[in-house]
Amino acid sequence: MIQAEIITIGEELLIGQVIDTNSAWISQQLNLIGISVKQITSISDDKQQIIDTLNQVITRSKIVLITGGLGPTKDDITKHTLAAFFNSELVFNEEAYKNIEAIFAKRNLRVTELNRLQAYLPDKCKVIPNLEGTACGMLFKKNDSIIISMPGVPYEMKTMMEKFILKELQNEFNLPHVVHKTILTQGIGESFLAEKIEEWENNLPENISLAYLPSPGIVRLRLSAKGNNKTELENSIQNQVNKLKELISEYIYGYDNDTLEIIIGRLLTEKNSTLAVAESCTGGYLSHLITSVPGSSAYFKGGIVSYANEIKKNELNVNEKDLAKYGAVSKEVVEQMAKNILIKFNTDYSIATSGIAGPDGGTPEKPVGMVWIAIADKNSVNSNVYFMGEHRGRNIQKSAITALNMLRKKIVE
Amino acid sequence: MIQAEIITIGEELLIGQVIDTNSAWISQQLNLIGISVKQITSISDDKQQIIDTLNQVITRSKIVLITGGLGPTKDDITKHTLAAFFNSELVFNEEAYKNIEAIFAKRNLRVTELNRLQAYLPDKCKVIPNLEGTACGMLFKKNDSIIISMPGVPYEMKTMMEKFILKELQNEFNLPHVVHKTILTQGIGESFLAEKIEEWENNLPENISLAYLPSPGIVRLRLSAKGNNKTELENSIQNQVNKLKELISEYIYGYDNDTLEIIIGRLLTEKNSTLAVAESCTGGYLSHLITSVPGSSAYFKGGIVSYANEIKKNELNVNEKDLAKYGAVSKEVVEQMAKNILIKFNTDYSIATSGIAGPDGGTPEKPVGMVWIAIADKNSVNSNVYFMGEHRGRNIQKSAITALNMLRKKIVE
Repeated sequence: MIQAEIITIGEELLIGQVIDTNSAWISQQLNLIGISVKQITSISDDKQQIIDTLNQVITRSKIVLITGGLGPTKDDITKHTLAAFFNSELVFNEEAYKNIEAIFAKRNLRVTELNRLQAYLPDKCKVIPNLEGTACGMLFKKNDSIIISMPGVPYEMKTMMEKFILKELQNEFNLPHVVHKTILTQGIGESFLAEKIEEWENNLPENISLAYLPSPGIVRLRLSAKGNNKTELENSIQNQVNKLKELISEYIYGYDNDTLEIIIGRLLTEKNSTLAVAESCTGGYLSHLITSVPGSSAYFKGGIVSYANEIKKNELNVNEKDLAKYGAVSKEVVEQMAKNILIKFNTDYSIATSGIAGPDGGTPEKPVGMVWIAIADKNSVNSNVYFMGEHRGRNIQKSAITALNMLRKKIVE
Repeated sequence: MIQAEIITIGEELLIGQVIDTNSAWISQQLNLIGISVKQITSISDDKQQIIDTLNQVITRSKIVLITGGLGPTKDDITKHTLAAFFNSELVFNEEAYKNIEAIFAKRNLRVTELNRLQAYLPDKCKVIPNLEGTACGMLFKKNDSIIISMPGVPYEMKTMMEKFILKELQNEFNLPHVVHKTILTQGIGESFLAEKIEEWENNLPENISLAYLPSPGIVRLRLSAKGNNKTELENSIQNQVNKLKELISEYIYGYDNDTLEIIIGRLLTEKNSTLAVAESCTGGYLSHLITSVPGSSAYFKGGIVSYANEIKKNELNVNEKDLAKYGAVSKEVVEQMAKNILIKFNTDYSIATSGIAGPDGGTPEKPVGMVWIAIADKNSVNSNVYFMGEHRGRNIQKSAITALNMLRKKIVE
């Protein structure tokens, strides 16, 4: 397997102000096309250190991906250092400048001198467009190695990788076929899932590997098959997915890059149906997930964040006596929230959440992490209680994810 | 300044399954006691690669901190590799074994053979207790360098650092002081900021360095001073911060680890005031930021996400004629949203957002990224229009951040 190395440049990484998330993402992408990562090195914006590191890395690995140090300000010296390393002159690049101008024009701003200088690029590199920002990527070749420099801003780097660099690497090297299929599950923890599929996992063919990718509320199972015949690999993977479906179908909500909010958008669009939400403990996060999907205004009418009990009462018509008797975190209240937002916003479906997000506010009967979630349509309302754990941020995330999956089940049932 | 390097060991880092958060945390801790990190290297559980890396690192740096590869299973080879590297024998360590026994006893489990083997440790190292787990730390010396191996589990490593290792390093080396101050700015891009402070930046004393740390809607400026006299450094930094304030005070919203949502929470609490929001284009994200702060229920009553125009009309009493005449993305509509949510939710302050998040829905007059934001209190309402750019996710983020800063200004004015 062809080996790559990653170099991340930036003082902010070495003083711990920024966690290097780029390397993990790049490693994943490279693995997906059959390239393994041998080493990741984080260094500062220091000319000599960049050169020393490059000299070592190119003796070990055919592919070197560099992120960071390409900003417009003085502390960003990667471009100048690479130009020197590859005996290159900086020349004005018309296309790069047009891109910079276009970005500034869109924001109604004039191009600053510092940004204009970003259009000067080494003459001995292949310039890689930056569709999201002003710093171009640069591809150099030395002996048998390819060295690529990218900006450190994650979304700029990711777009550059997806649109250009992964394809370049696939063209340049003879890579094996790698076929991946990711199965998305919700509602079961990693170790319980592992128990349920243990026998299946032990009997996987040798060229198929399995990875567990847990995140709050969700476990993704990624199957990867390597070999020379793509169709065979795809069939072999599909065969394993079918077996898996028999074991854990109730937890599977989708595949590959789908998210619950995208799946729900698709289902609501198909059914020509609308949605509203009434949020307490999720505090707007559920609405945010739903509206993060482009085009969601076609089916999402909106919601009410009823953080204070008076808002539950005045805006969501929750019965005052029930609020006092059962408390805000209760089946009675959450079901009223769901039913009443459905009526008020005149939608086909609704979701309501009410729980103790923490860190304070828990009691022995209603501990931090206890969350009621209700789903309503025009005929019925149903609700469940969950115990999400102690961490505020993850409680909010897990509650929103769980609520979306409850809605999905209601729609497809 | 004394230099350290970090080596993180583990295949999971190189396939991107785990993001290396240990390095950033360790770097922060070392910086606080005056040790700078020169380089971070992530490698796999491979004997030769560990040895090669160590050989390089100890020629460059006096302090080497290693995490990972100390688990009980076969793929964890760091201990054996270090023993060989330092010509050391593994010997049974009574205290380490007692600790392992105690940990298993707490969980009502017997000690497995694999875990018993973790009590065999190199005879030429100083053993560092692990108060949270079964893998001890190991401190080696070679020539002038100190090499310390720690487990990769973040909470085990952190306790070991805090209880033992930071003190060891302070005893072993004569360390300088390092003082950091981060200035948080909003409402100005990195290059415009750089232009405004260019002269100041060029005249910074030699022992003070500046870093630009941009994220959507925000640029953080970090000043770091190194020297022997802590009070002098603090004064010197404060002196520079004061100069900076004169140049860019209108953009500064806070310092160090503050966030706008935390600052607003503090201001509203101080004033015993309440807040409600009416969101269109931010779709719940503004509420989410506000409610991500523990205790926000004390000042945040809630909000309405009025994604559909009918919700703007029915729930926020936006004038139907104005909606038709000016459109939802307009000064008239956003100001009505802000005024009416304030009245409806009976709060002291309110925020409203209305814009084109994209990717669709833009027109030449109202392009994607155009966002109106209004802030109201009981006496007045004011609004601004912004052009955030093309990317839906970042438009939402920038709009929410900008809205929070507008509110902050209104509260402190």
